[in-house]
Amino acid sequence: MDRVLQYIDAHQDEYVDVLRRLCRQPSIAAQGIGLSETAEKVEGLMAEAGVSPRIIPVEGGAPVVYGEMRGKIPRTLLFYNHYDVQPPDPLEEWTSDPFSADIRDGKIYARGVADNKGNLVARLCALDAMVHAQGELPVTARFIVEGEEEIGSVHLPRFVQEHRDLVAADACIWEAGYRDLQENIVLSLGVKGICYVELEARGANRDLHSSVATIVPNPAWRLVWALSTFKDRNERVMIAGFYDDVVEPSDDEMDQLRRIAPYRDDGAQHRDYGLDRFLLGVSGIELLKRNLFQPTCTICGITSGYGGPGSKTVLPHRAVAKVDFRLVPNQRSEEIFTKVKAHLAQHGFADIAVRPLGLEDPAKTPLGAEITKVVAEGARRIYNREPLIYPSMAGTGPMHVLTGERGIPTVGTGVGYAHSNNHAPNENIRIADFVDGIKHIAMTLHLYGGGR
Amino acid sequence: MDRVLQYIDAHQDEYVDVLRRLCRQPSIAAQGIGLSETAEKVEGLMAEAGVSPRIIPVEGGAPVVYGEMRGKIPRTLLFYNHYDVQPPDPLEEWTSDPFSADIRDGKIYARGVADNKGNLVARLCALDAMVHAQGELPVTARFIVEGEEEIGSVHLPRFVQEHRDLVAADACIWEAGYRDLQENIVLSLGVKGICYVELEARGANRDLHSSVATIVPNPAWRLVWALSTFKDRNERVMIAGFYDDVVEPSDDEMDQLRRIAPYRDDGAQHRDYGLDRFLLGVSGIELLKRNLFQPTCTICGITSGYGGPGSKTVLPHRAVAKVDFRLVPNQRSEEIFTKVKAHLAQHGFADIAVRPLGLEDPAKTPLGAEITKVVAEGARRIYNREPLIYPSMAGTGPMHVLTGERGIPTVGTGVGYAHSNNHAPNENIRIADFVDGIKHIAMTLHLYGGGR
Repeated sequence: MDRVLQYIDAHQDEYVDVLRRLCRQPSIAAQGIGLSETAEKVEGLMAEAGVSPRIIPVEGGAPVVYGEMRGKIPRTLLFYNHYDVQPPDPLEEWTSDPFSADIRDGKIYARGVADNKGNLVARLCALDAMVHAQGELPVTARFIVEGEEEIGSVHLPRFVQEHRDLVAADACIWEAGYRDLQENIVLSLGVKGICYVELEARGANRDLHSSVATIVPNPAWRLVWALSTFKDRNERVMIAGFYDDVVEPSDDEMDQLRRIAPYRDDGAQHRDYGLDRFLLGVSGIELLKRNLFQPTCTICGITSGYGGPGSKTVLPHRAVAKVDFRLVPNQRSEEIFTKVKAHLAQHGFADIAVRPLGLEDPAKTPLGAEITKVVAEGARRIYNREPLIYPSMAGTGPMHVLTGERGIPTVGTGVGYAHSNNHAPNENIRIADFVDGIKHIAMTLHLYGGGR
Repeated sequence: MDRVLQYIDAHQDEYVDVLRRLCRQPSIAAQGIGLSETAEKVEGLMAEAGVSPRIIPVEGGAPVVYGEMRGKIPRTLLFYNHYDVQPPDPLEEWTSDPFSADIRDGKIYARGVADNKGNLVARLCALDAMVHAQGELPVTARFIVEGEEEIGSVHLPRFVQEHRDLVAADACIWEAGYRDLQENIVLSLGVKGICYVELEARGANRDLHSSVATIVPNPAWRLVWALSTFKDRNERVMIAGFYDDVVEPSDDEMDQLRRIAPYRDDGAQHRDYGLDRFLLGVSGIELLKRNLFQPTCTICGITSGYGGPGSKTVLPHRAVAKVDFRLVPNQRSEEIFTKVKAHLAQHGFADIAVRPLGLEDPAKTPLGAEITKVVAEGARRIYNREPLIYPSMAGTGPMHVLTGERGIPTVGTGVGYAHSNNHAPNENIRIADFVDGIKHIAMTLHLYGGGR
């Protein structure tokens, strides 16, 4: 493996260039921007790395890029990634163009560089380095790179149904992971599900002078009143049956939280966010438990009427909210959507339209799987520290449909860090983390193939 | 007067051109755009019409344009207008550029053409026509044209205090009036007050991935919860003491509503707005009473997080709402602002910042003043129909500070119509109404000067 690691060090500038090229190609799933172009670029990068690529069209959606490289022993490691990114807004808060991939202070800034292009490219670079430095891969590597992760992997379930053979594997490396504020290496074994809805209230057929507010309904009020019935001020979701299927963490999982807690510094984290304390004052194990095992109900956006400077006395004719529910085992996204609809009707808000923009179920790999041990050992060797293994992450992904349903053990690791600003302005990764991430994937392949 | 009316007919194209020129100059008070430029243009138009103009600087605000033309008898009619306009957004809903003053189907489309440039220009044109056609004005005319009406006439109180001599008058013609859906001429004798506030909730120091919503406060939720305590679903404002000073309409005023009601067609109006019925199902006299004599609490805008197409899973760090309270006698805007602040604190929302963006008190002229009879008689002669005299309008203006405090009888009339779209996209007036409006002002001056 020494030659592989040396090869990575020697070629790191090239690898950074490959990543920047990919980041300069916008690929915004929510807005349908640049998806097939990006799929072609990913196909090209796979071919450069020696992976056999295939663009698989998806009816009504963004294509999936599939890749495979055969290994020495009959064992297959699947990599799940996505080439789409979140919308870059608010643009005015970016220091450099979100698609310029600027380098400043050893960091690459770009929408998607952390989530998820940096991880995808690191994995391809690891294969490239192994093939060049030692001629072949220890195990077979497969890639599923989709283009709709940021909008809830809408077409992935059908894709998996139609291509069961392509996604067969002994284990899976999930899309991402990061170093926390204390530089701990965070690995995670599960994802939350999501039910993302758009609510729309309508009033008159056009915006009106607000002097008619005595006699014309205001959709902004309707939406505020409806939303205020979703969650109380103690953060309890008030939708009937919302918590019915929530499973408490197991004893093993609580033990794992107790192992993780001492490595963390809650104070540093909330200060970093500019907060005096966390929501409801939680900290320590209670914070971890809440963040990993409790579902959420979040207003991601609300828009109505005038939002510019100063005052405008207008009665809006339309109000829209975007709300995500992050779900935990054993909540089911379809059922939650049904409950949200029923809740609106029961509370007198049948006039408010509700549209599902993303439905995904939660998934989890049990503690103690071999791939977890391998990834953790790889981390010890590359980073020289004990990684933190989280029973789940607080984020979402299509793990349930891709590996969860078939019990393929899956672990997430990646090149982000505490200030990567995923989904937010000035998304970035540190170049040093990117290079270490390449090495970590190479080491993982080595160990999973039986190497020492 | 025949010669004056003929002169107006003969010069109507020129008068339309004057108006379009003024409309092409943006003057957005909320955004501080083009205000002094517009004041200079108004000064120029006054000079062209034979009025002696004066731009009076206002410390920290937009200048006031004052104008005076001496008349035959020692009697003074004051005209109150404003040269500023509302922001034109949402721009994408305009058929033509809001500052192009396009003519289509006999209508002029421009931000501000109805509110309030069309009225200002009609008044100047009436003077121009009278001077040209009959050599002099019957009474002295004065103009106060401010540039901050759309942001609550912030500096007008101080201006009036410092220039009591300039605003002295025997009566006042207020800025606007319109023809309703049934083409009735609407005159009005009062305005509501306003308390316009901006509420701002803040969370973390930056937008975050929504997966941390379990542990990081969401300002959009704070704002929704706070707003939901302002008004209940039956439109009752729940702020303590909000209704304390509301005065019920007098018997005379109720009689006046009974006179107006038969001329109106509520069904046509709510259908025009695309509604099945009015809010709370009101109609007839009840609707008039509610619209003219009840205060409001209106969300004019609410903005937080992602508002683009599709989904973005972000936890916003900021949420802003713009709320206007329209006030009726004897509510006081400063007191209402104090009550809003106290309400937030009492309900556990002291973290939400509240800023006043406009505070104005309501004002009303009693039924039966001489100027009202004169304006009504002028309307009968020009429009050949009985005008509807509303005891108040549902809109707001600085009448209290300008004429209300000193008991100067004031009546509003103007060139708008039911589809003028004040404060909304595609604001417009009909050219025929503009020409009639010029004649109506000329006739009013004639009658107020004792003419037959």
